[in-house]
Amino acid sequence: MSALSAREQQSLVLLTDLYQFTMAYAAFRTGVADREAVFHLNFRKHPFKGGYTIAAGLEPALDFLANFRFAEDDVAYLGSLTDVKDKPLFEKDFLEYLRKMRLEVEVDAVPEGTAIFPHEPLLRVRGPVIPCMLLETPLLNLINFQTLIATKAARVCDAAKGEPVLEFGLRRAQGMDGALSASRASYIGGCASTSNVLAGKRFGIPVKGTHAHSWVMIFDEELEAFRAYARALPDNCVFLVDTYGTLSGVRHAIEVGKELRARGHELLGIRLDSGDLAYLSVEARKLLDEAGFPKAQILASNELDEHLITSLKSQGATIGVWGVGTKLVTAYDDAALGGVYKLGAVRAPGGPWKHRVKLSEQIAKVTTPGILQVRRFHDGDGFIADLIYDEERGIGEQTLVDPVDVTRRKRVPEGTAFEDLLVPVFRGGKVVYRAPGLPEIRQRTQQQLSQLHPTLRRFLNPHLYPAGLERGLHEYKLDLVLRAKEAAGLSGAQEDQA
Amino acid sequence: MSALSAREQQSLVLLTDLYQFTMAYAAFRTGVADREAVFHLNFRKHPFKGGYTIAAGLEPALDFLANFRFAEDDVAYLGSLTDVKDKPLFEKDFLEYLRKMRLEVEVDAVPEGTAIFPHEPLLRVRGPVIPCMLLETPLLNLINFQTLIATKAARVCDAAKGEPVLEFGLRRAQGMDGALSASRASYIGGCASTSNVLAGKRFGIPVKGTHAHSWVMIFDEELEAFRAYARALPDNCVFLVDTYGTLSGVRHAIEVGKELRARGHELLGIRLDSGDLAYLSVEARKLLDEAGFPKAQILASNELDEHLITSLKSQGATIGVWGVGTKLVTAYDDAALGGVYKLGAVRAPGGPWKHRVKLSEQIAKVTTPGILQVRRFHDGDGFIADLIYDEERGIGEQTLVDPVDVTRRKRVPEGTAFEDLLVPVFRGGKVVYRAPGLPEIRQRTQQQLSQLHPTLRRFLNPHLYPAGLERGLHEYKLDLVLRAKEAAGLSGAQEDQA
Repeated sequence: MSALSAREQQSLVLLTDLYQFTMAYAAFRTGVADREAVFHLNFRKHPFKGGYTIAAGLEPALDFLANFRFAEDDVAYLGSLTDVKDKPLFEKDFLEYLRKMRLEVEVDAVPEGTAIFPHEPLLRVRGPVIPCMLLETPLLNLINFQTLIATKAARVCDAAKGEPVLEFGLRRAQGMDGALSASRASYIGGCASTSNVLAGKRFGIPVKGTHAHSWVMIFDEELEAFRAYARALPDNCVFLVDTYGTLSGVRHAIEVGKELRARGHELLGIRLDSGDLAYLSVEARKLLDEAGFPKAQILASNELDEHLITSLKSQGATIGVWGVGTKLVTAYDDAALGGVYKLGAVRAPGGPWKHRVKLSEQIAKVTTPGILQVRRFHDGDGFIADLIYDEERGIGEQTLVDPVDVTRRKRVPEGTAFEDLLVPVFRGGKVVYRAPGLPEIRQRTQQQLSQLHPTLRRFLNPHLYPAGLERGLHEYKLDLVLRAKEAAGLSGAQEDQA
Repeated sequence: MSALSAREQQSLVLLTDLYQFTMAYAAFRTGVADREAVFHLNFRKHPFKGGYTIAAGLEPALDFLANFRFAEDDVAYLGSLTDVKDKPLFEKDFLEYLRKMRLEVEVDAVPEGTAIFPHEPLLRVRGPVIPCMLLETPLLNLINFQTLIATKAARVCDAAKGEPVLEFGLRRAQGMDGALSASRASYIGGCASTSNVLAGKRFGIPVKGTHAHSWVMIFDEELEAFRAYARALPDNCVFLVDTYGTLSGVRHAIEVGKELRARGHELLGIRLDSGDLAYLSVEARKLLDEAGFPKAQILASNELDEHLITSLKSQGATIGVWGVGTKLVTAYDDAALGGVYKLGAVRAPGGPWKHRVKLSEQIAKVTTPGILQVRRFHDGDGFIADLIYDEERGIGEQTLVDPVDVTRRKRVPEGTAFEDLLVPVFRGGKVVYRAPGLPEIRQRTQQQLSQLHPTLRRFLNPHLYPAGLERGLHEYKLDLVLRAKEAAGLSGAQEDQA
């Protein structure tokens, strides 16, 4: 189930950039609508200066595809748009075409929870140019964000070293769906639960929470507030202790913990939400242990991320549960994944594929031609290398060339075990992929991370995983680029730069 | 109309943190549910190190309030939740209470498009504690994000100095609603249009766009691609010129521009999307002018924000239209507004208001007690100062005290013109506020910005606008804080810090 329910998705076909419609119209009007295209969705660098990225967002993307059709009011809205001369932007025959349009595209994708690397297609869309164009923006929107957050969550959970991470981000998330889809992606990345009840209901993610400062402030005394809460929810007591003073709060929590125990219940823990969490957690732990509550857990929150958690752990903080909100659900330190959706090949009906490259002054931004697939090689120790290859061209030799630093190459011995990452997910207007349940996707993330060399999971200057173009494809691309530069008059002096 | 349509909002009552429900349950179970509370939603510092913030998100928040009711499946989901002993978290009488619940709260709010300052309530919610609690998280989610983006957009538009800014962010936004609500807030902040067609349909925002690199790549030659587009949309030609080489692309655009002119149409402009925009815009301008296209505009995009736009302008870039995406819709450099929702006062039925403060080691995080209102003083030159005061206490003297630096004070002369910013928006379960149309809100933003001293709009170290507590309120708060610290054992040595 996606972030938006199926019913809500019915009207989302306009969730795309206007230029997709103007291009579609131009294709319709000028007779190139029958050309077939292949587009790839990929990104150019890992977010957070990291060493890996976790793919996510496929199931919502498939929901979007499954519900792709133009409602009457969608067509009416498009019909109301005008150009600079106040004439209709689109003529009626095009609107009629849209009304009848069914998605005749083939989509292949990398399953959610898969570790992926720059330049590798996460998604490949093949079909007539018009639907391929219209899908660009919504697919990027859905895949970019969930991939970003699943990756952030994997990093945060890695920092917590197996201790549970609770996602608490709803209040600071970027809109309602920015929260719902972030909860989904955070769970995929490894979080144990969310505070967002609607995400719990829609996705089956466990929901967790403690209480707010306001609960304490409703009462005249903190002790009275804790007691009232314990009366109502004796088996759900994690007291927030910092409304007035953290350690005085811990003492009140202990007092109520003793009362709970006398009634046959146990204090689950306390929550710290401000101050020096390293110092306060150690002091709180001492108080709890001395009072006979060694199993009461210390939950901490307050602008946490993977770096702060690592720092707190290195200082000996005795925190056992991590509440992570803003920095996780907004990916605060790198709030967008720069995913792109680029044409790899195009052909006229019955004609041969024509391979395309988009030039750029930055080599990382030059696109890769072909109908691409990713072959991942592995042995008993984990993943060895990824080879991006053109399915039509096949694999000449198992040598990969880094798309940015062409002197970085790696040869994979024949006979090495492998799997191809892109699998068919959409054919003939229908989803043909059985999306795994979220717990299964979450498990896949963990399994994938376990196959990465530990140096790839390092936060500071991680190792660079060997992922590159099959050598024949690299040489073909190089040739196309040089020829295109020559055609654009860029082969000699740098025309575009002073 | 909100980012999510009314129909979609029907099921959003669970879009809150679980702890709101556990607190609500504890209140229900322990007999404090009849207490009346006042909560304030405010933030503690401007985003982007700026000098002002633009309020936004009220109308979607009111839509949320108007549709607040528990559906059967919401209640069923809450009934399915269990505690650590696998017993139901909530008993049936509470679920029944929720099922019948109607929102009996009073909400007052600052109109959208209003310039606001730290510690000022944007929203005030008054009513029984349970609904007040349940509303905390969704109100924060809706108001935080749209306020953040409206503010960012105002800054970006300020940098563009009256030249149109087109919002292009959908593909990199944080989820679908992260895009839709960002488009709405960007328009409020001053953007001229959005690329997001669904945002255009839902909110009536003008939609704009050019074409993508893929349009060029579908054809064998760039010139052929431009010609085809011009045939279909002769009055809508803004050619993206950097697929192969920017200046060769400009020459192709000019060639097609001449052909268009011969047919009675005009080339609207070109778009630059990579490379050195300062250099390329100047060279492109020369080519366009020399070829007789002085009115063809140069639109630029590529990771723009207020700082890059300012830099490009200072370098003499000849860009006339700015396409801004990722950095705007994700507020990339400060991706969350730290809005909070804090209890100001509480009372038992028939009892007097009890004022509350939450302590903190950081003075900026200590909450303000009371039932707060903001009085804004102004003269013919613009806004002079804002006074946060308690409506019950009234205003003793018109002296304001900065909540963080208590030595910063300002006295406003008697007789100065003023308005109170919070207005009634929700009473007796109904919206009582006529929400202005988006163009009117957008205009309000501009009007408000014009009332701010220019030094407040500076990006680097802006001036600090005088906004503070009414002196009597400040002294009362100080007294409450010191007494609360004494009660928590914090009055002497710093207990909480080593």
